Amino acid sequence: MGADLTVRFRRLIIIGSGLIGTSIALAVRDHCADVVLSDRDPAAARLAASIGAGTALPGGPATYRGAAADLAVLAVPPAEVPVALFEAQKHGVARAYTDVASVKQAPMAEAAGRDCDLATFIGGHPLGGREKSGPLAARAGLFLGRPWVLCPTGESTAATVAAATALARACGARPVLLEAAAHDQAMALISHAPHAVASAMAARFVDIPEPITRLAGQGARDVTRIAAGNPLLWLGIMSANAHPLADVLDDVARDLAGTAAALRTAGDTAVTDLLVRGLAGHGRIHDSQKAEGS
Amino acid sequence: MGADLTVRFRRLIIIGSGLIGTSIALAVRDHCADVVLSDRDPAAARLAASIGAGTALPGGPATYRGAAADLAVLAVPPAEVPVALFEAQKHGVARAYTDVASVKQAPMAEAAGRDCDLATFIGGHPLGGREKSGPLAARAGLFLGRPWVLCPTGESTAATVAAATALARACGARPVLLEAAAHDQAMALISHAPHAVASAMAARFVDIPEPITRLAGQGARDVTRIAAGNPLLWLGIMSANAHPLADVLDDVARDLAGTAAALRTAGDTAVTDLLVRGLAGHGRIHDSQKAEGS
Repeated sequence: MGADLTVRFRRLIIIGSGLIGTSIALAVRDHCADVVLSDRDPAAARLAASIGAGTALPGGPATYRGAAADLAVLAVPPAEVPVALFEAQKHGVARAYTDVASVKQAPMAEAAGRDCDLATFIGGHPLGGREKSGPLAARAGLFLGRPWVLCPTGESTAATVAAATALARACGARPVLLEAAAHDQAMALISHAPHAVASAMAARFVDIPEPITRLAGQGARDVTRIAAGNPLLWLGIMSANAHPLADVLDDVARDLAGTAAALRTAGDTAVTDLLVRGLAGHGRIHDSQKAEGS
Repeated sequence: MGADLTVRFRRLIIIGSGLIGTSIALAVRDHCADVVLSDRDPAAARLAASIGAGTALPGGPATYRGAAADLAVLAVPPAEVPVALFEAQKHGVARAYTDVASVKQAPMAEAAGRDCDLATFIGGHPLGGREKSGPLAARAGLFLGRPWVLCPTGESTAATVAAATALARACGARPVLLEAAAHDQAMALISHAPHAVASAMAARFVDIPEPITRLAGQGARDVTRIAAGNPLLWLGIMSANAHPLADVLDDVARDLAGTAAALRTAGDTAVTDLLVRGLAGHGRIHDSQKAEGS
């Protein structure tokens, strides 16, 4: 589980000094002589620098004056990845580039459309996070023991793959190679759909009277906990993974509508079927996680 | 928050020595001179007695030989409440009767149809539980600080209401008076629908390959945690509250299908609307719970 120390970075550039970018900067401090922080809001980069995450640039990649870094990490929202990659490559700030966005296909296609260099780029998605955001919420241990998915572009060089893999290991994460399409389908299933389902359940609580809300127990709170996420952030994530997510939501909706119809006609079989499949599916992600922790 | 000690029971009869019945018996030990335990399986009652929950009857209410108890608690599944009430009243084991089932309208209507005495009965639903079952999973503190809904039949006498209220307080719970219909609608919203929704989400995980299940994080696990419940037990609960539950599930299904359609056509407004309503609903049950804990 310990970080792989065989690759040390000389210089790393983090573009986007929010929760994820700053957490990566803090995590790699011991593996990198020089961490440079940038953000479209220079105050965010300075804030990250003030907690020891590295040295702040006065502006975007254009303001960088040093030698090309070993790796540039684009820690910006999914929709901003293509432009951020184009800008960073135009200024040649690094020899390899990766991002941290939770969707991979759409940004990669748009980057290709903008004539970005896909040989020095590899998609990345560290599966760690918190409900808070911004550089002051950053923690060096955010990715410890978590999967870090890496999606080569098809043109990614071996050196690019190696640099991103070393970054994941330096953060204490477990690199997992996946095709971009497989990643997006997986995220639709295990991250984006659960969020939409939690929201759709929580939406039912908007109008219920106070004495009733006080009857809610741990079950209702667990099912709806992640509905607390920032709607604008999640709109961006869901829109960027629209079709794989829509397929999963249609399946869930069909199951629930079918269960409702069965309940109205005392169709025990369909209700039992849902509960049995739910129990089996629960075992898939709760058991494997237990094995993971051992 | 401390238990109300103004009413002390002389004798209590618990019919059904599972998790809930045995937990009630353990909770009232200090408020009741004599707790009598019964179960259709005499071994369960003996097991409950062996951990200090009270004295076991050799069989059902017919085997009870003492004076009428202050209160009989029917701690049996929803579908068995009417028969259990009828039997207990036929043998006159107590002066008042209550149950612990998580649905109230259907059992109450069936009890009326069986000519049970609705003056000495009041529906009860303590909102505590665990994922384990059986007498050995029982804990005296299971209901501490939790709501305990009481649903008068319309004929319930003041003495009956007082006895059930005193039981809830003796268990450290907070009595909440509600009409049976309001209770069932509330449970459909905050308990039964969240369970069905968790099952429908978890059902999507049945066929996904191992490496993908290992990407699942805390969000996916929280949303699906309660899908681990016993399918037969939940079939009974959902069937007994079929129509109020079906209404909620149809609403959730409609929201999810609408979100899927909006995603396919880049209809940001509908997606944002779901996320914003989800956030608002989340605040309703998470905030009120915080206030509750203070």
